[in-house]
Amino acid sequence: MTDSPWKAAGDRQSEREAKRIAVLTVAAQAFNETGYHATSLDDIARRLNVSKPTIYYYVKNKEEILFECARMGLELMEEAANEVIGSGGSVYDELIAVMHKYAEIVTMDFGMCLIRVGEEPLNAESRRTLRTLKRGIDAKFRSLIQRGIEAGEIVPCDAKVAAFMLAGALSWIARWYRPDGPLTPQQIADQHIALIMSGLRVRGG
Amino acid sequence: MTDSPWKAAGDRQSEREAKRIAVLTVAAQAFNETGYHATSLDDIARRLNVSKPTIYYYVKNKEEILFECARMGLELMEEAANEVIGSGGSVYDELIAVMHKYAEIVTMDFGMCLIRVGEEPLNAESRRTLRTLKRGIDAKFRSLIQRGIEAGEIVPCDAKVAAFMLAGALSWIARWYRPDGPLTPQQIADQHIALIMSGLRVRGG
Repeated sequence: MTDSPWKAAGDRQSEREAKRIAVLTVAAQAFNETGYHATSLDDIARRLNVSKPTIYYYVKNKEEILFECARMGLELMEEAANEVIGSGGSVYDELIAVMHKYAEIVTMDFGMCLIRVGEEPLNAESRRTLRTLKRGIDAKFRSLIQRGIEAGEIVPCDAKVAAFMLAGALSWIARWYRPDGPLTPQQIADQHIALIMSGLRVRGG
Repeated sequence: MTDSPWKAAGDRQSEREAKRIAVLTVAAQAFNETGYHATSLDDIARRLNVSKPTIYYYVKNKEEILFECARMGLELMEEAANEVIGSGGSVYDELIAVMHKYAEIVTMDFGMCLIRVGEEPLNAESRRTLRTLKRGIDAKFRSLIQRGIEAGEIVPCDAKVAAFMLAGALSWIARWYRPDGPLTPQQIADQHIALIMSGLRVRGG
């Protein structure tokens, strides 16, 4: 049997999707390194060794790229939380595991882009979509903290404030993390989580 | 003696500066409410009940407004830290006091604009200037934490990571704080600082 010189529709579809993800990944890297405003579609095409019209085959414009990068960052967080929650172990262990994944994601291309550039340059509808996704992740943190309080593992506190506090502490990593810095994402996550859970104050001090 | 119909040069200068601050304040409010990209100079002029040419008398363009808003946010933080540090009291009390002021500033117009919009839309030179100011504030937090560790008041940790952790937790307030929300800036600051210092984990649990 001779292979058809035309690819099956499914293969073409997945190849197109893989190339689209490549465009988004390289764009996120460019945004993270030199800034969203300072990056043009020409810059992205150059990084990919393709022409600008090729880019337009996968995405409509720079705004769509940013929206998709931020959405993928949020979806990674959502999936990570879904994987961990209800997987067994104490609610405390689940919270630690979700924090670890969150910290890891903000050091990666899409997660970093989500925090460094964010939704600010996008139109109102795109911003609304991203905010809805964010609220979903925030709700998961709040619920974990609330369950932790009820289980006597987390200090009695306003779960909303605590969820924002830890999301802020972990998200900020995206603002200062450098792949060539002295700490690995794993070490940064460990140190942040230890401080968030145990506090900065010497106990009994 | 009859008052001169011409104002003294000093008065004119301070009046101009007051109006310039008013332009920046109203612009920061607009950026925080509707976003930097969605806000035009026309919108800012409308909020001030003046014409667009009047705005140009005080600032060159929207980028200059954002730069000045972010710079003022950072200067408020710098001044607050300088006021507290070395004012007496333990290094622990100084750290708490600086954190309180920082948390308060990010709920105010310029501080909120610094975090919500940030330096991302600005040119490389402006971004460099703001980053230098940020490094100065970060250095103050690190130094307080380092002194706290040496005094046995803060847990032994990497002062750099701890400074980023608390700056992240406190800065994030600017992203979700609403003046019409149920918590006052003071309550939000108190709750954040309590969690950062004591940790989320039940002690002895």
